Amino acid sequence: MDKPRGEGQRVEGGRGLDRILALSDGEDAIAITLLVLNIEVPEIPEDLVAQELPGELLDLLPKLLSYVFSFLVILVYWMAHHSIFGIIKEHDRGLLWVNSLFLMFVALLPFPAALHGEYGDQQLVVVLYAATMAITRLLLGSVWWYVLGKPWLVHIEMDPTTRRIFSIRGWVIPLIFLISIVISFFSVTAVVWSWILLVVADFVLLRMIRR
Amino acid sequence: MDKPRGEGQRVEGGRGLDRILALSDGEDAIAITLLVLNIEVPEIPEDLVAQELPGELLDLLPKLLSYVFSFLVILVYWMAHHSIFGIIKEHDRGLLWVNSLFLMFVALLPFPAALHGEYGDQQLVVVLYAATMAITRLLLGSVWWYVLGKPWLVHIEMDPTTRRIFSIRGWVIPLIFLISIVISFFSVTAVVWSWILLVVADFVLLRMIRR
Amino acid sequence: MDKPRGEGQRVEGGRGLDRILALSDGEDAIAITLLVLNIEVPEIPEDLVAQELPGELLDLLPKLLSYVFSFLVILVYWMAHHSIFGIIKEHDRGLLWVNSLFLMFVALLPFPAALHGEYGDQQLVVVLYAATMAITRLLLGSVWWYVLGKPWLVHIEMDPTTRRIFSIRGWVIPLIFLISIVISFFSVTAVVWSWILLVVADFVLLRMIRR
Amino acid sequence: MDKPRGEGQRVEGGRGLDRILALSDGEDAIAITLLVLNIEVPEIPEDLVAQELPGELLDLLPKLLSYVFSFLVILVYWMAHHSIFGIIKEHDRGLLWVNSLFLMFVALLPFPAALHGEYGDQQLVVVLYAATMAITRLLLGSVWWYVLGKPWLVHIEMDPTTRRIFSIRGWVIPLIFLISIVISFFSVTAVVWSWILLVVADFVLLRMIRR
Repeated sequence: MDKPRGEGQRVEGGRGLDRILALSDGEDAIAITLLVLNIEVPEIPEDLVAQELPGELLDLLPKLLSYVFSFLVILVYWMAHHSIFGIIKEHDRGLLWVNSLFLMFVALLPFPAALHGEYGDQQLVVVLYAATMAITRLLLGSVWWYVLGKPWLVHIEMDPTTRRIFSIRGWVIPLIFLISIVISFFSVTAVVWSWILLVVADFVLLRMIRR
Repeated sequence: MDKPRGEGQRVEGGRGLDRILALSDGEDAIAITLLVLNIEVPEIPEDLVAQELPGELLDLLPKLLSYVFSFLVILVYWMAHHSIFGIIKEHDRGLLWVNSLFLMFVALLPFPAALHGEYGDQQLVVVLYAATMAITRLLLGSVWWYVLGKPWLVHIEMDPTTRRIFSIRGWVIPLIFLISIVISFFSVTAVVWSWILLVVADFVLLRMIRR
Repeated sequence: MDKPRGEGQRVEGGRGLDRILALSDGEDAIAITLLVLNIEVPEIPEDLVAQELPGELLDLLPKLLSYVFSFLVILVYWMAHHSIFGIIKEHDRGLLWVNSLFLMFVALLPFPAALHGEYGDQQLVVVLYAATMAITRLLLGSVWWYVLGKPWLVHIEMDPTTRRIFSIRGWVIPLIFLISIVISFFSVTAVVWSWILLVVADFVLLRMIRR
Repeated sequence: MDKPRGEGQRVEGGRGLDRILALSDGEDAIAITLLVLNIEVPEIPEDLVAQELPGELLDLLPKLLSYVFSFLVILVYWMAHHSIFGIIKEHDRGLLWVNSLFLMFVALLPFPAALHGEYGDQQLVVVLYAATMAITRLLLGSVWWYVLGKPWLVHIEMDPTTRRIFSIRGWVIPLIFLISIVISFFSVTAVVWSWILLVVADFVLLRMIRR
């Protein structure tokens, strides 16, 4: 309340921000947990169970890997959300909308994840998956770019380094996902490797910049 | 505690209000996330996947649009809930009940949403969807009208403009949904357009009144 | 911390209690929202939709009523939970366990509810439903009886009237559910009416005692 | 902030820790509630309901027991999580990751639980179940071992006894689950009994050490 404000700016504080976080955390927790519903218990006739179960469970392995990867991506997004909102101290209507659009895509993620678990060898599916993930991250980035232009919503202590890290990170993940779409036109298998690279790159990059 | 109270009024403060909000936010988050379960991964025999998947995914488009619209409506309701409870500082048994009836309909929304995603061209379905949405918004409005008559539950600072905005908004959305029911008797396709108009109208109206 | 304590009593305060409430509210919100999954969108061949949909939706009416009733019961339980924990200020291991057993049955409720929505005319189903509901309420009552014997866990201000109301309410609902089990041996239809009576009775009783 | 810190340590406090707990509690609540979805309402042709329902419900008993056991295990884990975080006062990036890996396995638990409810007599299934449960508990233990090495993240008051209890408990449950895997090579039925022993042992051990 003690910072310069734009003309006619309506700022809302107090319990409001807590509820935005409650909705965001709730949705992340649910989206992350719904992912497991894609791994279904195989249905096998009673007299064949002992014989066929090992094979059926082995067939679930791609779905399990897909679960782990989608979980990690949503988690990385949640962590970025966590970091960004660690800087925000007040909110306005615009922030509510930007954050909500991000949440709309987070809630949607279990679908492309399920699709990828089922048809991960199809280029179309890989493109859809990468595109949804990229858009979701861009929307999260928008939360960041939104508050950057409205200094009265954030804590004064934000140092230039933090600012730079957040701005770079907002582009890195969407960019790699977009590159993976290009790769998918040559090889669908290579895409999955580019994604694993993505998580590692993000991790290393974060450590490097922090130094 | 420093305001005039009705005779025999029992007011409860403290952690109680936080829990009402926790339940409300939790339910909103879940209802919003369950919507995506309506978009199911198509089941295609293995040798036809490459051939049929694009068509099957295209067929999911109405469900996706239905998801986006239902998500936006629940979100707009959540935002209104957020605004209304931003003014409330204490609660009593009556407020608990009115809010709970609202939550009962929020938790129900995934059903008409799923129904609309599947049979969106049926007039009956459109009527059911619009009616549920209208009733849900009216119940949220009831939360507002309830506290209006009990000034000891709200913060003193509520200005007449905010009061007017909230009262008007409580009627606008139900009214448009009810009009859309009338429209549905002439054209089911027109209804969907009236709904899109609804979201835009709500957005513009809000901005206008705020000025 | 300023009250007499039993020997060797371990009391935990602070954030711990908030987390118990967070888990409880989260579970209630989810259990309540999962109820709607019992109401499934009917599957109808495309050329028969216009003709058969109205009938199919009408057939869902018992499930809808079952949803409303189960929702109301869980809600009434949540409200009682809300009231009881409004008095509790600290927790120990025992309280954690009693509350958790209550939560185990709350999380189970969507199953008897689904069963009742499907086979509500079967005496066995009615008995199972009433028994689960009664046990759940008794476990909630146990939370109350547990803290009654440990005054250092509750706020000093609890008046005798509140104490009496809570103790009576802990028995009324289980009792009516148990009576409804007896009734079910004569008429399954009568049971449903006894349940509706239950909600009304609970409501009236609460108002009377409060006076 | 008044304790010695390692060089270059980044510590984050405030709302951040609350959000980690919110995500953890949310996920636990959802994972616990999803377990019930494994108990499905049997589908019986209308004219055979009265005749076949009792038998079909009896067949669900193993699933119900599996539900109760999985619920109790997740609950015991949540309680340990609750105790561990009762000591933590600040968090850093590493803690976030260790806790998240734990959450990834918690969110996965409904799958082995469903598998066990369906094919609990298969040795492979029992091994998978025990292994997942053991790994999940080891990851929770890692949260504990992580903060042990970083005293600036915890409250100063942690006494040596508490420290010892937590360290022992981190090994007991995984160990018993691993032993049960060995047992499973001789008798699958014996495994289930070893698990029941596990819960009792954990309970008794906890009481003993506390004295």
